[in-house]
Amino acid sequence: MARPIDPERLRSFFTPRGIAVLGASTKNQWFSNIANYARRLGFDGTLWPVNPGASEVWGYPAVSSVSKLPDEVDFAAVVLRSSQVMPALRELDARGIRNVLVVSSGFAETGPEGKALQEETVSFCKDRGMLLMGPNCLGFLNMNASTGVFAGGSVEGELTGGPVGIIGQSGAASEVIATKILAKGLGISLYVTTGNEAMLTTEDCIEYLLEDGVTKVICAFTEGFRDTARMRDLAVRAAVKRIPIVVVKVGRSSKGVRAASSHTGALAGDDAVVDAFFRQHGIIRVDTIEELVETAGLFARYPLPEGGNVAICTLSGGLAGLYADMCHELGIDLPDLGDATGDALREVLPPFATPANPLDVTGSGFLGGMGRIVETLLADREVDVVLTLSFAPAGEADRFAMDINESWMAVARTSRKPVIPLVFREVSPYARRYYRATGHSFIEHAGDGLKAVSHFTRYARFIRARGAW
Amino acid sequence: MARPIDPERLRSFFTPRGIAVLGASTKNQWFSNIANYARRLGFDGTLWPVNPGASEVWGYPAVSSVSKLPDEVDFAAVVLRSSQVMPALRELDARGIRNVLVVSSGFAETGPEGKALQEETVSFCKDRGMLLMGPNCLGFLNMNASTGVFAGGSVEGELTGGPVGIIGQSGAASEVIATKILAKGLGISLYVTTGNEAMLTTEDCIEYLLEDGVTKVICAFTEGFRDTARMRDLAVRAAVKRIPIVVVKVGRSSKGVRAASSHTGALAGDDAVVDAFFRQHGIIRVDTIEELVETAGLFARYPLPEGGNVAICTLSGGLAGLYADMCHELGIDLPDLGDATGDALREVLPPFATPANPLDVTGSGFLGGMGRIVETLLADREVDVVLTLSFAPAGEADRFAMDINESWMAVARTSRKPVIPLVFREVSPYARRYYRATGHSFIEHAGDGLKAVSHFTRYARFIRARGAW
Repeated sequence: MARPIDPERLRSFFTPRGIAVLGASTKNQWFSNIANYARRLGFDGTLWPVNPGASEVWGYPAVSSVSKLPDEVDFAAVVLRSSQVMPALRELDARGIRNVLVVSSGFAETGPEGKALQEETVSFCKDRGMLLMGPNCLGFLNMNASTGVFAGGSVEGELTGGPVGIIGQSGAASEVIATKILAKGLGISLYVTTGNEAMLTTEDCIEYLLEDGVTKVICAFTEGFRDTARMRDLAVRAAVKRIPIVVVKVGRSSKGVRAASSHTGALAGDDAVVDAFFRQHGIIRVDTIEELVETAGLFARYPLPEGGNVAICTLSGGLAGLYADMCHELGIDLPDLGDATGDALREVLPPFATPANPLDVTGSGFLGGMGRIVETLLADREVDVVLTLSFAPAGEADRFAMDINESWMAVARTSRKPVIPLVFREVSPYARRYYRATGHSFIEHAGDGLKAVSHFTRYARFIRARGAW
Repeated sequence: MARPIDPERLRSFFTPRGIAVLGASTKNQWFSNIANYARRLGFDGTLWPVNPGASEVWGYPAVSSVSKLPDEVDFAAVVLRSSQVMPALRELDARGIRNVLVVSSGFAETGPEGKALQEETVSFCKDRGMLLMGPNCLGFLNMNASTGVFAGGSVEGELTGGPVGIIGQSGAASEVIATKILAKGLGISLYVTTGNEAMLTTEDCIEYLLEDGVTKVICAFTEGFRDTARMRDLAVRAAVKRIPIVVVKVGRSSKGVRAASSHTGALAGDDAVVDAFFRQHGIIRVDTIEELVETAGLFARYPLPEGGNVAICTLSGGLAGLYADMCHELGIDLPDLGDATGDALREVLPPFATPANPLDVTGSGFLGGMGRIVETLLADREVDVVLTLSFAPAGEADRFAMDINESWMAVARTSRKPVIPLVFREVSPYARRYYRATGHSFIEHAGDGLKAVSHFTRYARFIRARGAW
């Protein structure tokens, strides 16, 4: 088991104040991307292009060599060709800069020669007390601390801090994750890419997020864990803290394994073993990025339920049947409602509605609000989670939707059981902000959303089964 | 096997010019919904509220009884209580109005008494040559003909004509389908809800859509087919015409079956038998509404491929691995690329990229455009379909995205093989319009999109296996 990196060291790595970019140039996107994300993060430190042939890059005053960097620089990003990385590391060492991101590719992912170069790099860094992120990665965005060094170009949306940690071996895939997390209205604590993981690994980042005091759920896109003993230890610590680790793990197929190997040089491992390992240790494996995002949304916004029984109410028998089938497929338990619940529902519902789970409140049963219906379902001792019909509001003036939502939200606030909106109507940008402002995630895509619910309830059972913590 | 309804009769049913609404009132939403959708359809016929106690409803002049309706009225919608439906049918018969939609619920879905009432209704209509839609349904939108009678309230977006036919036993579920089809940038030929299907059945509507000359793909949300012999016959005719039928069929679970029965009184049938029947007859079964929409998009926009071999190109090894795993799970064949293809790709790709399928063109391999890469993949005899990296444009001024898209679109136009954009970046409203205007569907959600690709290629193989048509 690898020795973990000192947490204080990692904290300083992830909160740079003066950032040098070696190889900054107007000829490629790297520096402009880094500057652009620094601006979008509200970074108030300094950014220094290092380029022997330029006095400025995109308006930033440049220095001609590492030796001329001011003292405030505590972090360097290297975007040079792989052959120039070792000389750069020596200069950085000489200048006393020991936190380094290597964006450059051309290392272990390319074959034996690159592998040797990568090993030389690691051995130098270890010897000199340097911490290296990458190579072959995009860097990180520390959204809660308004700092970061990110050379990618495709994280879209407002960079908002929050409780979701994201770790991606793959740059582009994790950019999609970060974008969709933000689009879902969730905030991000730290988004970090790890690439070839020559030194800084996914495991290191998981450990950091477990201890940062704000992260409530960890999302990872990985091609393979390097250190299973350590991963097991981290999984136990995560379970104690009730911080779920949700993972897209490439390598279910031989072509997937091959892609992983030529991508970051990762060994994907036997997939059935990976599955069993995850299951045993409460690590949640998901198959798609969308399922990852939906799952993160539930864990970020709702308390863990006491058990795994779910009640669903919707406005249509067709949707009730569809949801029933999907829950059956996913192993989500929809308990029959108790007699008292049935009687209480009959008092609230139109005469032609039938108490059942899923519950079809019918096309008019919601007109008086969903409050009493949700309250009745919550009062049933067999119910641990309620998925309630919610109309996504088109805008603030949409009183129809607002009144119905406020009726169940008022009830949800008084309950310790999660009440999750299952949205009817398309979710407008306004509606996204509305659910965020009211502290809710929302299920718009029932397929992904119900998969997320199955992870949510299964994890709750896993935690409970572990017993007396 | 039920005798099919005369096609000419159905055509006149679905193109009303003068519409009476029995029970129109300001006290409920039915009439305002019908009027609202007529307006949104661009309906230029007339609309007549029938209400004994009102001289006008929502600004429309009302008549006090059916007998006072003008001659131009050729269609009646009934939104009265179920007990008033039989008297209304008698009045309509006396007035010579024989095309009737019954929105009212309270029939077979409620038990023996309602079942008897429904049977009385049917027997009267058959005797008098009346055609009845429903009861317990919302009506229809004939978007290609700018007419319709629709009492629902939740089909969102611009009502655009096009090649997708939609049939929903469930009103609300099919409203979601129609909304998402429109949001995907697809047009709808006829959207029809069938409810209890006392007379007009899903099978009747499928037959109509098969013969309407514009529908290229039929989407159905059903709780059970009434007439399997006829359904088999329709499936054969659909295959001959290469019009795929894509179905969400509720009833995979006992709770789903129960919901279906109390909803529209349908018998869901043994699910394994349903599956086998669908498979044998080339009917495509999907599990979610989103999968239905994605699948419809491919069939609406692309020619059937010659075979089932797919090549994928993306900009990331992580995504390449993820897609490989998903294709493996879905049974999508990703053939190894031929030597000539590999050699040709090496000439176009950056030196550190490796020809493979899925192909990672790397983070810079797309900068010169995707045209030659897609062209090379299309030239491989083993490849039948290409999924190409596409950047969703943020707007018209987004030259970066536009140039890359135009490069592969130019190549796609010269090929008979489908080239389907696999989108990187969030799809903006502008991008939706852009893909529509260029004749493309797009895969934004890889999980649903690759499921759609698996249906697309499997259907192509099914059609080819049927032989010499």
